[in-house]
Amino acid sequence: MCRGVHVTIVEMLDQLLPALLDWEMAAFLEKYLRGKGLDIRLRQKVTRIEGDGNGTVARVRTSSETLEAQMVLLAIGVRPNVQLAKEAGLVIGLTGAIAVNDQLQTSDPDIYAGGDCVECTHLLTGQKVFVPLGSTANKHGHVIGDNVTGGHSLAPGILGTTVFKVLDYNLGRTGLTERQARQCGYEVLTALVPGPDRAHYYPTAATLLLKLVADAKSGRLLGAQALGPGDAVKRIDVVATALTFGATIDHLPDLDLGYAPPYSMAVDPLAHAANVLRNKRDGLARGVTPQELKSMLEASDGPVLLDVRTAAEREQLQLRDPHVVWIPLGQLRKRLGELPRDKPIICFCKVSQRGYEAQRVLDGAGFTGVKFLDGGLVAWPY
Amino acid sequence: MCRGVHVTIVEMLDQLLPALLDWEMAAFLEKYLRGKGLDIRLRQKVTRIEGDGNGTVARVRTSSETLEAQMVLLAIGVRPNVQLAKEAGLVIGLTGAIAVNDQLQTSDPDIYAGGDCVECTHLLTGQKVFVPLGSTANKHGHVIGDNVTGGHSLAPGILGTTVFKVLDYNLGRTGLTERQARQCGYEVLTALVPGPDRAHYYPTAATLLLKLVADAKSGRLLGAQALGPGDAVKRIDVVATALTFGATIDHLPDLDLGYAPPYSMAVDPLAHAANVLRNKRDGLARGVTPQELKSMLEASDGPVLLDVRTAAEREQLQLRDPHVVWIPLGQLRKRLGELPRDKPIICFCKVSQRGYEAQRVLDGAGFTGVKFLDGGLVAWPY
Repeated sequence: MCRGVHVTIVEMLDQLLPALLDWEMAAFLEKYLRGKGLDIRLRQKVTRIEGDGNGTVARVRTSSETLEAQMVLLAIGVRPNVQLAKEAGLVIGLTGAIAVNDQLQTSDPDIYAGGDCVECTHLLTGQKVFVPLGSTANKHGHVIGDNVTGGHSLAPGILGTTVFKVLDYNLGRTGLTERQARQCGYEVLTALVPGPDRAHYYPTAATLLLKLVADAKSGRLLGAQALGPGDAVKRIDVVATALTFGATIDHLPDLDLGYAPPYSMAVDPLAHAANVLRNKRDGLARGVTPQELKSMLEASDGPVLLDVRTAAEREQLQLRDPHVVWIPLGQLRKRLGELPRDKPIICFCKVSQRGYEAQRVLDGAGFTGVKFLDGGLVAWPY
Repeated sequence: MCRGVHVTIVEMLDQLLPALLDWEMAAFLEKYLRGKGLDIRLRQKVTRIEGDGNGTVARVRTSSETLEAQMVLLAIGVRPNVQLAKEAGLVIGLTGAIAVNDQLQTSDPDIYAGGDCVECTHLLTGQKVFVPLGSTANKHGHVIGDNVTGGHSLAPGILGTTVFKVLDYNLGRTGLTERQARQCGYEVLTALVPGPDRAHYYPTAATLLLKLVADAKSGRLLGAQALGPGDAVKRIDVVATALTFGATIDHLPDLDLGYAPPYSMAVDPLAHAANVLRNKRDGLARGVTPQELKSMLEASDGPVLLDVRTAAEREQLQLRDPHVVWIPLGQLRKRLGELPRDKPIICFCKVSQRGYEAQRVLDGAGFTGVKFLDGGLVAWPY
């Protein structure tokens, strides 16, 4: 139930918002929405919407079940209406939107087109993309206004920056997701970092889950996703700005961003996430994603899961799995004998900061194959 | 009265926060604080704090008056405690803080120093500055940690980014103020732009006053100040990021920032302010600052003040000055005959967007010397 209405989301793919978020980010959102009483059916295709015979909707048939329904919202994407352009004989791009050059001229140089029916150029990939947004449409209006009155303006490339509210969560992404980056042929580095969006003792502090994606070879930053009740949009805007200037992961922690407890942490979550990327690049940090760990746990000879949290934290929340060994970080150096040397060890804590420290301690003690769980328990979606 | 306490601020200079804000931004803050019941005494120097003879403070004597007081807060700046460094024979910089190189080594290569007692390098001016902040101290810790363990890290330059809350206002600045930029020898362009921080129809929309400073010659962005109940900090962080990469005023409007009504306008206030700068640079827009207009009005032969707002707006708030002529923008082209051609005309509206349009209309009709009031009535501090 959500505001007194029983809501069911039917999604054909295996995650929410597949075009916008990577799987583990979508899984974090899904967990939140289920907690709010929404019913989510993934990997189901809507096959038929049926009425009650009197003009009112009655049920939705999917590839696996039938759902009673009094109202149906279709949110199945946006297609540009290019009929007028077609009738005018203008070239339509591969994306289905009107093809324009960087002055926003169509294939007929006397006809300009902008806004929600034209293609844009992606700043990172150089590819044509269709991302209709009011902010881009306003930029286009400016460019066309200049060009048709004798000026010379160019339409800026875009990053696919998207932000919106989902109940009380703020959600944003810019640049490429991990999936998109891999599809473009990048070898990627990723960081998955949960944490407070401002000083943890400040009354309005709220959690933010941040994912950064970078090119493993050049260190160039490729994208960011942010999600949670915390201030996601500010971080997305900072990354969008950095991406515009070709920032690498070494630039982010150096930014002189505004720091005061009502707004941020002394080490901004963005800087922290970029430091995780740097440590991964430099071979200091080795993470496993939640999905990778899930597969490892399902294999016959699973890893040791090393919980390095305090007793108090463990009382609050436990990962119930027979592979778990619990040694608080402060005792780890003294209790190395309790850990096997012939098995992979995956360290974790609440957000995997201590998980990473545990990995470093075990590295130093000669253990091999030790990793930490990306994002810790907070980002664990199962 | 503020929370039941009568508060008086005594400031020696002619504005609040002289090291952080330009005069008109400080005047906007002052107006807000006075509205909240704070008593503000500028151009007065505290000369003496006196007790009641029993160990309790009783009054503050300033250069012009005596104020009763039960409590006194001194906020007169920060000086680094460099005694230990001096005793160790380390070089102290001109700022009074410990001199360090970019690896944070002091004049003794075996002693590193970081945080609130060392100098930083300003990214824009290259000068040594003293801006103690927890965010910078954390970066220094990282750099020193790397360098003393065999790594090679460099302390990043800073932009003097500062953000804080003042009652319910958010305040931020980064880079150079107009005053600082002029002191550094720049010929500056400025924009003063008030507006909602998100879609004006969204329940949490709030006003933000934004000032941008740029180098008139190169178009390079030099700094930003933001103030108001709206989201100032996000804009400051975006500008800080852009400044780090040497952005010009042409970069800002092109940024693909996150747009959705709960967070922003389709044209972000930052983009709008940068467009004002571009129009000024290109000779299309000519602004006068509130201070300049004040001087003009005090001269014997003042300008015509052209109010181009609607009747409804004018009923709500009027600028009571004998120089004001009222012609709503929509009627301007028909009523040009009511305006003199031998006097300067200063157009204004609520935020001077229509004021600028009026200037363009009058330019087109052959009027000369027409300007608009930077920031409109919202930013008018008198």
